[in-house]
Amino acid sequence: MSEASKARAGRRGRGGGGAARRAQRSAVSFETAKYIERNVPNFEVLTEEAIAIIEANAEQVLEEIGVAFVDNPEALERWKAAGAEVTGERVRLPKGLARELIKTAPSEFTQHARNPDRNVVIGGRNLVLAPVYGPPFVRDVDGGRRYATMDDFQKFVKLAYMSKWLHHSGGTVCEPTDVPVNKRHLDMLLAHMTLSDKPFMGSVTDPDRARDSVEMAEILFGADFVDQNTVMTSLININSPLTFDATMMGALEVYAAKNQASIISPFIVGGAMAPVSVAGTLTQVLAEVMAGVAYSQLIRPGAPAIFGTFVTSIDMNSGAPTFGTPEAAKITYGAGQLARRLGLPYRSAGSFNGSKLPDAQAAYETANSLNVGLLAGVNFMLHSCGWLEGGLVADFEKFVMDADQLGALHGIASGVEIDENAQAMDAIREVGPGGHYLGCAHTQANFKSAFWRSDLLDYKPFETWEEEGGRDTRQLARLRVDKMLADYQQPPLDPAINEALNTYVAEKKASMPDAFT
Amino acid sequence: MSEASKARAGRRGRGGGGAARRAQRSAVSFETAKYIERNVPNFEVLTEEAIAIIEANAEQVLEEIGVAFVDNPEALERWKAAGAEVTGERVRLPKGLARELIKTAPSEFTQHARNPDRNVVIGGRNLVLAPVYGPPFVRDVDGGRRYATMDDFQKFVKLAYMSKWLHHSGGTVCEPTDVPVNKRHLDMLLAHMTLSDKPFMGSVTDPDRARDSVEMAEILFGADFVDQNTVMTSLININSPLTFDATMMGALEVYAAKNQASIISPFIVGGAMAPVSVAGTLTQVLAEVMAGVAYSQLIRPGAPAIFGTFVTSIDMNSGAPTFGTPEAAKITYGAGQLARRLGLPYRSAGSFNGSKLPDAQAAYETANSLNVGLLAGVNFMLHSCGWLEGGLVADFEKFVMDADQLGALHGIASGVEIDENAQAMDAIREVGPGGHYLGCAHTQANFKSAFWRSDLLDYKPFETWEEEGGRDTRQLARLRVDKMLADYQQPPLDPAINEALNTYVAEKKASMPDAFT
Repeated sequence: MSEASKARAGRRGRGGGGAARRAQRSAVSFETAKYIERNVPNFEVLTEEAIAIIEANAEQVLEEIGVAFVDNPEALERWKAAGAEVTGERVRLPKGLARELIKTAPSEFTQHARNPDRNVVIGGRNLVLAPVYGPPFVRDVDGGRRYATMDDFQKFVKLAYMSKWLHHSGGTVCEPTDVPVNKRHLDMLLAHMTLSDKPFMGSVTDPDRARDSVEMAEILFGADFVDQNTVMTSLININSPLTFDATMMGALEVYAAKNQASIISPFIVGGAMAPVSVAGTLTQVLAEVMAGVAYSQLIRPGAPAIFGTFVTSIDMNSGAPTFGTPEAAKITYGAGQLARRLGLPYRSAGSFNGSKLPDAQAAYETANSLNVGLLAGVNFMLHSCGWLEGGLVADFEKFVMDADQLGALHGIASGVEIDENAQAMDAIREVGPGGHYLGCAHTQANFKSAFWRSDLLDYKPFETWEEEGGRDTRQLARLRVDKMLADYQQPPLDPAINEALNTYVAEKKASMPDAFT
Repeated sequence: MSEASKARAGRRGRGGGGAARRAQRSAVSFETAKYIERNVPNFEVLTEEAIAIIEANAEQVLEEIGVAFVDNPEALERWKAAGAEVTGERVRLPKGLARELIKTAPSEFTQHARNPDRNVVIGGRNLVLAPVYGPPFVRDVDGGRRYATMDDFQKFVKLAYMSKWLHHSGGTVCEPTDVPVNKRHLDMLLAHMTLSDKPFMGSVTDPDRARDSVEMAEILFGADFVDQNTVMTSLININSPLTFDATMMGALEVYAAKNQASIISPFIVGGAMAPVSVAGTLTQVLAEVMAGVAYSQLIRPGAPAIFGTFVTSIDMNSGAPTFGTPEAAKITYGAGQLARRLGLPYRSAGSFNGSKLPDAQAAYETANSLNVGLLAGVNFMLHSCGWLEGGLVADFEKFVMDADQLGALHGIASGVEIDENAQAMDAIREVGPGGHYLGCAHTQANFKSAFWRSDLLDYKPFETWEEEGGRDTRQLARLRVDKMLADYQQPPLDPAINEALNTYVAEKKASMPDAFT
């Protein structure tokens, strides 16, 4: 750790020293769109009456049924001190307590990236897009479906870095199963920190790993900077229904204490972890998120917390979770309304689908969910690209297919311009009945930015398409994956920081025996 | 025509006589969902200010630039009599004239089907779904891409009849290119009338063919009934920009005079037939629709007319039209607002895509447009399934794939229930922290109707899916097409009417030489 300490001590502010600045100037730069700032309204499915009922019911759940904080005596003490009624591991919150505690959580916050141009503001009318999280398998055209490795992980980090419409590098883009369970978070963080300059997520699988995440962030950003600023947004799942386990809460405690952001997120397959009804699920989601965010504020008032909602439906014939479905859509819209009422940033939606292949099913279900996410007012969309097979698989081709579609979300979110140029009255006069606009002055002046254009999909004439082999989307995507990985160039990083990070990881790994479960 | 007249005269009201009723009782019936009655709000992208500007600009276009009514001296006379300024074929409408004339058009109307259970109400908060219209080619897995025939057409009519989420049989589902141009409308109408009992569209390719459509409808429904009720909704395209040709207007004149509905629809590839900006395109669309609907009211005040908007974007690199794009989405949302301000039913959106195959591109683009259509307040969605390759191809597999996804639209549109059962508080109490809902009383009582379920997509475990051949959506759809066509049973029809329709078609065809252009 001595190298790491030296690097921290020797660092002069963010962005590194002169060497890094020189490297930055000479590097190829890849365009990343700014996070989405919506200029369109949100779509809202709940009436005022429905909101009032759901909010009252959620308070009732917290007071009467309560939530369980498992294996976590300190949490129970904190709750007692805050005025909750604690019986065994059950915590019952008097009406109004959670809502009162939540008031200190910010309605929006900046997550800093090591490249300040990549900073994101999470909350308000913004939408930040991050890739798939968690699959143990990967798939691509050539290799088929297989366990994910660290090599796959690094490829995904590179693809995310080079994807114009992704604002965030994410976290466990896939599980690198060839690295011991207790060490893989180190390699994953190292990849995010060194192969990309976009913001990233910390480890949550153990409080110690959360602490490692913070220490590595302190090497990258400087310890003072990390204490004063949010540089990680991490995923804290609630063990629905109404249960907060010690592992996730332990990670939350580490992050909140350090002013790092947590997504407090019920993980719900409807009909299994929540009632089969939309209103019932929203009630439980609200109660769970309120308890979780309130708890984060008991750790450190003002620590950023995001209202998370991972909800999907179930196929009652087979028990399989199903995605891109209307019930999930309605819950996602409704939870957005509830999040805004609490003044919290909102996380939901993604490239969800249950398909085994990046085919039409995958795309229908994904497009359904992505569009819902945009209109539901989601502020942080995890899983926005690459998800396949109910989250079991991170698919390389689907990653770039979805990432391309995220451009369309940017286009819709920009809203409708109405200035004189947009009104185009001179063009309508110039062309008149029966003419055409292709050559008119207004078209010439505006066509470059007028229409969003896919960088992937096929717009060619049929004959050309056929001559080129009649390729489907997956085959086009495969070529794009190869091209992006071939073009990839590592963003510059102060060599001292790079060395310190590598040393930290090597020393940490050497200090522990391997664990594979 | 004598047989037809006899059949009309001999017909005792709608639905046919005792023979038909007996046939009905013994027939297999296929479930058709009721048209969508939205219980969710519309999504609106235009501010009040933007609406005011666009409406003022459209009036300015009509007054200053005007519209052209080509090769149609009678139309010019009608416009003169109504107070327009006519110069050559140019018709300029004083501000307010079109909006005033439009007031007699109904805000909603019933289109009757020969099976009254299939009647649809077009307008209000409703959404009626109809299949693809117009492709000269068809495609399926086995036969590839080829010119469409009458056999293909009949198959599509059967598939539409058997598709639960389709409310309408449509019109030119594909072009039966093996039938002479001047006769194919007769075979198409006969197929809609005899192979299905859902509502359908009339021919618009010539005023004479519109008259044939009315005469065949009179055989099917009775002449008095047709005069008093709307039994056809037909597609009247505007030759954008700002041009109304004699063929389409001739068909409109026939239908409006008979109280039959017309969709007055600008056909716009943005940047070619309208300005490249959203606001400019909406201005032109509004001006065109206002002129067209106003003209329909000059023919017969009160004749049903639909505010149509077919708008897509263009790839400025290749000139190809592009689909499922953000600009098309914004125009579709905005045009819905303008239609509601005029108090007219609204037609837009569909299974639009530019892909050559029913692959992920096709599904992304289609899902984008279908979701927009639902939230934009569309009342009549033509092309809601089966569209491929920019409308050049009607694809059999995509037809059933899209038709299945239309079920999800029904699910979203139903909105959120908030009664005591939906609140599910007893379930949350029963299960409590750490339990699960699969076996609880509320789940048992509600699971059958809780979640929309695809009839097509793959929800199987990976291993099962792999053992069954690892099929993609297209292959699953192929099986479904075969199954549906094998299961098809013709809906019962009074044999006298059936005979009269066949005789009418045979006599009409015999009365004309074949024409192929």
